[in-house]
Amino acid sequence: MSFDRLIKAIKEKNNPTVAGLDPKLDYLPEYITEEAFAKYGENLEGAAEALFTFNKGLIDELYDIVPAVKPQAAYYEMYGWAGVRTLQKTIEYAKSKGMFVITDGKRNDIGTTMTAYAAAHLGKTAVGASSFEAFGADALTVNGYLGTDGIKPVIDICKQYDKGMFVLVKTSNPSSGELQDRVLDDGLTVYRTMGNMCEKWGEELMGESGYSGVGAVVGATYPEQLSELRKALPHTFFLVPGYGAQGGGAKDVAGAFDKNGIGAIINSSRGIMCAWKKEEGLDMHDYAKAARREALRMRDSLNEAINN
Amino acid sequence: MSFDRLIKAIKEKNNPTVAGLDPKLDYLPEYITEEAFAKYGENLEGAAEALFTFNKGLIDELYDIVPAVKPQAAYYEMYGWAGVRTLQKTIEYAKSKGMFVITDGKRNDIGTTMTAYAAAHLGKTAVGASSFEAFGADALTVNGYLGTDGIKPVIDICKQYDKGMFVLVKTSNPSSGELQDRVLDDGLTVYRTMGNMCEKWGEELMGESGYSGVGAVVGATYPEQLSELRKALPHTFFLVPGYGAQGGGAKDVAGAFDKNGIGAIINSSRGIMCAWKKEEGLDMHDYAKAARREALRMRDSLNEAINN
Repeated sequence: MSFDRLIKAIKEKNNPTVAGLDPKLDYLPEYITEEAFAKYGENLEGAAEALFTFNKGLIDELYDIVPAVKPQAAYYEMYGWAGVRTLQKTIEYAKSKGMFVITDGKRNDIGTTMTAYAAAHLGKTAVGASSFEAFGADALTVNGYLGTDGIKPVIDICKQYDKGMFVLVKTSNPSSGELQDRVLDDGLTVYRTMGNMCEKWGEELMGESGYSGVGAVVGATYPEQLSELRKALPHTFFLVPGYGAQGGGAKDVAGAFDKNGIGAIINSSRGIMCAWKKEEGLDMHDYAKAARREALRMRDSLNEAINN
Repeated sequence: MSFDRLIKAIKEKNNPTVAGLDPKLDYLPEYITEEAFAKYGENLEGAAEALFTFNKGLIDELYDIVPAVKPQAAYYEMYGWAGVRTLQKTIEYAKSKGMFVITDGKRNDIGTTMTAYAAAHLGKTAVGASSFEAFGADALTVNGYLGTDGIKPVIDICKQYDKGMFVLVKTSNPSSGELQDRVLDDGLTVYRTMGNMCEKWGEELMGESGYSGVGAVVGATYPEQLSELRKALPHTFFLVPGYGAQGGGAKDVAGAFDKNGIGAIINSSRGIMCAWKKEEGLDMHDYAKAARREALRMRDSLNEAINN
């Protein structure tokens, strides 16, 4: 019911990195797609099988050095229900290797509908006399625009199953300020107001680490806001996208961490997944080894920036 | 690239109603679940098959009197990838009957990730030399908290495939005001600001009807804001949830329509889906006929309220 499990995993691996699994067919070595197409057809199902093979290879090379993965739901939905089945199989496989899984779905709704999303991604679904895990992630990203009615149902499921959520607060994209940076009549920005709501929602899910189970998404591309929010929200754990491909560096994210060097996990998706495309002369069968090398470089850069 | 197709369908059926397909196992007549469990097992797959049978029965009784259906993604995700397959099959079946399909997914993300969502739900996905419709709805609900970077990719797909979107503006839930009613430093509320962004985004998707392809979600439970927004946003078509089970009545939604009686579509989910539970002495095999009777009552109430 907090992020204690995630914090423990980060400390064990001395690595505050989450590897984003946002696979597009373009990112895959050709031999993987060719094999899957030959077996399952050149269609959504074949593509979905190729994605799973790719993810599995990455997880095999990452699980002992990276504490968490973050599959992005959009890239699976794009391949239809077969893609969504790959999402489920990816989560299952990452968990079997001991990884913490954050499903990046930015889900949002109200009441029983939000309960359905929370049950889907974090809890269980009752069917007749039994209950089943539909997706079974450890945490889910959510959007708080609808207010407490959209968050309370997730809190309840997090309590029941020891799971967590990350609420969008200040996103990494260029236009995030259009609404999020606007100032309300009490002088606070929208993103700060959303951050304050996270602190309040988190009271129900407080962990021994001092961080609650209600985290916040804050982009690496806004280092000033990252530091401002770290100070203002002492119990809110941060998920930080925007490192690498979007332009954020290790120094930019240093402000996301508290004085003990915890408080955040930094995401890299393309940087790790597509590392194999940047290594000259690499045999593409070693794509996952290239991902591992990049993950180690990222771990070392982050630790250097945090400790300085 | 606008809501002209939807408006035409509403006029043809003289009915501004969208039937929400948010099926939970509890809503289904027992004979449907029992049959599906016997055939596919008492598990997520069996449940998903039961939902599809239920939906199909409803669509068969509604398609000639109701112009649109709105499946809520959460209730399908709850049953895992098999549930998501039922979402796809439901959309396909409703479209085969000539209905306009709005997937209520409240999706949101940025850049290529939002493009992936838009391709998944409204467009096509390239695999090798071919392209496939993953879900193929006519419109998608989206959340605009991330700003233009989260909407532009959907606009592009809407242009390409003649589809539309509904952006959350003022939601129907009790706590929607926590953020949405807050006043910004220019004196406008957050919901109004979001509404103004819809008008602006819609310029790229203007239809002959005068309404664009960027609609807004505005709850039936806030009739004052509904009227305010109708006046302020002359090119923004409204999707109005909160009718019936959430407390909104026909008079409450009258303000959503313009002087020509168009400009909005009113959703009812439980009211229609569960009508069979309220008819005393009904043979449960006639659940869909009860839904049809409720849909006709709703159509007549709405038309009376709009014309007075």
